[in-house]
Amino acid sequence: MTDVAVVLSGCGFLDGAEIHESVLTLLALDTHNLSYQCYAPDKPQMDVVNHAAGEPADESRNVLVEAARIARGNIRPLSELDPDSYRAIVFPGGYGAAKNLCNFAVAGADMVLDPQVERVAKAFATRGKPAGYICIAPAMISRIYPQGVRCTIGTDEGTAAALTAMGAEHVACPVDDAVSDERYKVVSTPAYMLAQRISEASAGIGKLIQQIADWL
Amino acid sequence: MTDVAVVLSGCGFLDGAEIHESVLTLLALDTHNLSYQCYAPDKPQMDVVNHAAGEPADESRNVLVEAARIARGNIRPLSELDPDSYRAIVFPGGYGAAKNLCNFAVAGADMVLDPQVERVAKAFATRGKPAGYICIAPAMISRIYPQGVRCTIGTDEGTAAALTAMGAEHVACPVDDAVSDERYKVVSTPAYMLAQRISEASAGIGKLIQQIADWL
Repeated sequence: MTDVAVVLSGCGFLDGAEIHESVLTLLALDTHNLSYQCYAPDKPQMDVVNHAAGEPADESRNVLVEAARIARGNIRPLSELDPDSYRAIVFPGGYGAAKNLCNFAVAGADMVLDPQVERVAKAFATRGKPAGYICIAPAMISRIYPQGVRCTIGTDEGTAAALTAMGAEHVACPVDDAVSDERYKVVSTPAYMLAQRISEASAGIGKLIQQIADWL
Repeated sequence: MTDVAVVLSGCGFLDGAEIHESVLTLLALDTHNLSYQCYAPDKPQMDVVNHAAGEPADESRNVLVEAARIARGNIRPLSELDPDSYRAIVFPGGYGAAKNLCNFAVAGADMVLDPQVERVAKAFATRGKPAGYICIAPAMISRIYPQGVRCTIGTDEGTAAALTAMGAEHVACPVDDAVSDERYKVVSTPAYMLAQRISEASAGIGKLIQQIADWL
């Protein structure tokens, strides 16, 4: 059995998975000798952003095909993820998590989950298998766990208010830490919601993966 | 003064910069409290590869625009790199280094450097400022330093023979180590020329950045 499924949402923080967070997740898992398999939805990205200009690009890209860049080609469609084959799941952040895994980026507290994300995330939740949500990905937690689930996106008040409106209990958290809800074995960390430098994101993601390792 | 210039060659190991190597480089620099600025050539990629299928894609992408994904938007055109403004330079690998920074991927030992790469790399060399070349990027070293410069791409005999044909002294090196030429302050490490897992690439890149820090 592979230990951990990692769900990517593209490749690049403005329209896909945050690259540093994704790589730091894989590094932390490997450092703990936890094996992993990357997955992503096989569908068009919500949009494509020119990361040099910070402006929309008139292009169409596929979430899975772009995420494959981070996974060095070793990636599978999220529709093929069998929750019984993994011990835990991790969702790195980036706008892709809020654009391609759900529509929080445009719908806020009225967001809905991508159907495959909903299927797999709820399966890990109901089985009591550990799950980690990084950066903006914790915006999805209230749609997956019972009301009052504890999570963090750091300290941004507007985003925290949206999570509270959806029924989560938001807990403010510094960049180098993580917030766990022991009842549901779900852990979250702010990463680039707060990080000013990559070593800060690494510290928080390290704590998140450590928590998952402790639960396994 | 920013400490280190990092030259990226796109975003994705089959047509651009190897993402893990690039992120691990930034992490190691930041962990050493070395500040960095990313650069990339502002020109079309040699090609675009679908990383899920491992096959060519009928698309055109710009090296700088794609590399900006790794740099979280904080990137400048390589033509603007002033070697007097930095203490050291690092080139992560990936096929992009052999396709977009030079043409080693298609020309082998007959390769030529991108003019801007040649300008900046030679400037650091002639000034005696430390330089790090990762994965396949050391294929460029013989075009920048005097004959007999010591470097490594790991243990691949065909690639090593090409480097020797170009006048370098190739030194076999395990994945978790790096090869230094103290005369020229240039260091190289195999990374994904050999790495089977990300923690192996991290170990070698960590040694490379440690060597650069020791030289500074």
